[in-house]
Amino acid sequence: MVASIGATPAVGTDGTETAARGPVLGLDIGGTKIAVGVVDDQGSVLSYLRAPSKPEQGPDESLKRLFELGHRAVADAGVDIHAVGIGCGGPLDSERGILIAPLHLPGWRDVAVTALAEQAFEQPAFLENDATAAAAAEHRFGAGVGTRHMLYLTISTGVGGGVIVDGELYRGAEGNGSEFGHVTVDWHGRRCRGCGRLGCLEAYVSGTSISERAGEAGLPGLNASQLAASAEAGDPVARALWDETIEALACGLTSIVNLFEPELVVIGGGVSNTGEQLLGPVRVRVQAEAMTPAGHDVNIVRAGLGDHVGVVGAAAIALDRIIA
Amino acid sequence: MVASIGATPAVGTDGTETAARGPVLGLDIGGTKIAVGVVDDQGSVLSYLRAPSKPEQGPDESLKRLFELGHRAVADAGVDIHAVGIGCGGPLDSERGILIAPLHLPGWRDVAVTALAEQAFEQPAFLENDATAAAAAEHRFGAGVGTRHMLYLTISTGVGGGVIVDGELYRGAEGNGSEFGHVTVDWHGRRCRGCGRLGCLEAYVSGTSISERAGEAGLPGLNASQLAASAEAGDPVARALWDETIEALACGLTSIVNLFEPELVVIGGGVSNTGEQLLGPVRVRVQAEAMTPAGHDVNIVRAGLGDHVGVVGAAAIALDRIIA
Repeated sequence: MVASIGATPAVGTDGTETAARGPVLGLDIGGTKIAVGVVDDQGSVLSYLRAPSKPEQGPDESLKRLFELGHRAVADAGVDIHAVGIGCGGPLDSERGILIAPLHLPGWRDVAVTALAEQAFEQPAFLENDATAAAAAEHRFGAGVGTRHMLYLTISTGVGGGVIVDGELYRGAEGNGSEFGHVTVDWHGRRCRGCGRLGCLEAYVSGTSISERAGEAGLPGLNASQLAASAEAGDPVARALWDETIEALACGLTSIVNLFEPELVVIGGGVSNTGEQLLGPVRVRVQAEAMTPAGHDVNIVRAGLGDHVGVVGAAAIALDRIIA
Repeated sequence: MVASIGATPAVGTDGTETAARGPVLGLDIGGTKIAVGVVDDQGSVLSYLRAPSKPEQGPDESLKRLFELGHRAVADAGVDIHAVGIGCGGPLDSERGILIAPLHLPGWRDVAVTALAEQAFEQPAFLENDATAAAAAEHRFGAGVGTRHMLYLTISTGVGGGVIVDGELYRGAEGNGSEFGHVTVDWHGRRCRGCGRLGCLEAYVSGTSISERAGEAGLPGLNASQLAASAEAGDPVARALWDETIEALACGLTSIVNLFEPELVVIGGGVSNTGEQLLGPVRVRVQAEAMTPAGHDVNIVRAGLGDHVGVVGAAAIALDRIIA
């Protein structure tokens, strides 16, 4: 569905509605780290803290540490918060505020994370897919400010994203759309670790997949940045791998652009730190291959919020929901 | 953009707004045939006529015949019409009502078709991509009635479609999104006649591509229905080709479902007349491969409007625009 700003009225634990506009607390639950921060309604990060997530401790212990970190961030900011936004990988149920079985948190099942956060902070809490939340943040505060039709693609351990349609977040029928990592580039290609199908975009361009492909080609132990540097330095194997990475990303993005016809594509995540060495040639290929009308540019830019995007994204979701 | 029902107020040639609800005249401009009909606000077709389109006669002569046919349809229906909807393949500019350079009408350039139709019928006229219009028709009157998130895919000479988001037509930033035929299934695969890229869905499953693939495999002159019949009868070459067609369609649809998370996928166009021999196995594969949450079905059904979808689609666009 299109989540209208304010479609869900902010209801506190006491049942009353609030029209508060911020600041809010953002909680980002990753597989290796948790990050928390207080963010105001202009997207400014007033405090920021991070720690290992240790999901193997189980949800009770992990969330206890997350909420303690959150309370410290609120104290550091020295302000009252008006809501809590939580970003996490799926599958999750954002309407009911439940982590169903997050792929990056093995063993976590049906965790009612917003109810627990509402108890811990005595403020309304909201849950969203982290890539969707990041799309909201880039649209509201980052590289996509002022656009009506924007795609956000994050290329990190996995590949995900979010869609802004006519200025609002598009979430699919039940909040599980925008699986940009799982568009096919080659139906007979590499097995995708994320979904099990053959030839998904994620199986070529995620940080994990780039390292795997490098290892298979005789360059073990390289991450995306190191591979990009070797390619730049002229190593022919690295260059061929990097070119294939560009080709796969351009192919997947062209399909996505043909479906959504966005004004702007914003690319974030660790792999995007390779910057124009990745985005420059991808931009040229997508422009040449997408079915945009003659003379219309496909705009592809780097994300604007950097490492804070997880926390700002979680906060943006809370702000979207409490601002009527 | 999301085209809200009534977002464009219906303005007659005299500049006054009208709140009329129908009947309306639908005009469908295809590459081989034109079809016209009067349609009421319940989607009932009150009159219907078709004729060869002969686009090589040029827009002046072709549109003169189209409008004459339209006037006959209005006379046949014996009612007053309140608007004219026009469906046509792109590229076109639906906001300004101009056929930019339709791929199926060679030589037509910048034809101001809605202005000409408004002169001919003295009613407001509206232009839309024909596949987008068909999606609106299936949503309003056909297989998608009552859904909020619906995809319509037409598999005919080419492959196109349309998207309903939260009950409204999604058209991309400038009305050129939903190019379902141009999602990649194999980045090193067959050249796509539609867009020139390698391995588009259309290069495998359009009626044209199915016939081409059959010819290359030693079964010249077969159309999709004939190939399906040969496969059903046990011909091993036909069966392998049909299986590949199913695999390509399932692959492309899985990517599309992963991006949009629709409640329902409606499939129309001539190739869909092969019915469950195509849709049955496609449904099973998409269900197995798409990233829908456990226990959630991906619903894939045949279109409900049959051969009238072009005219009803054009009419649905006119009804959308004149109903506030």
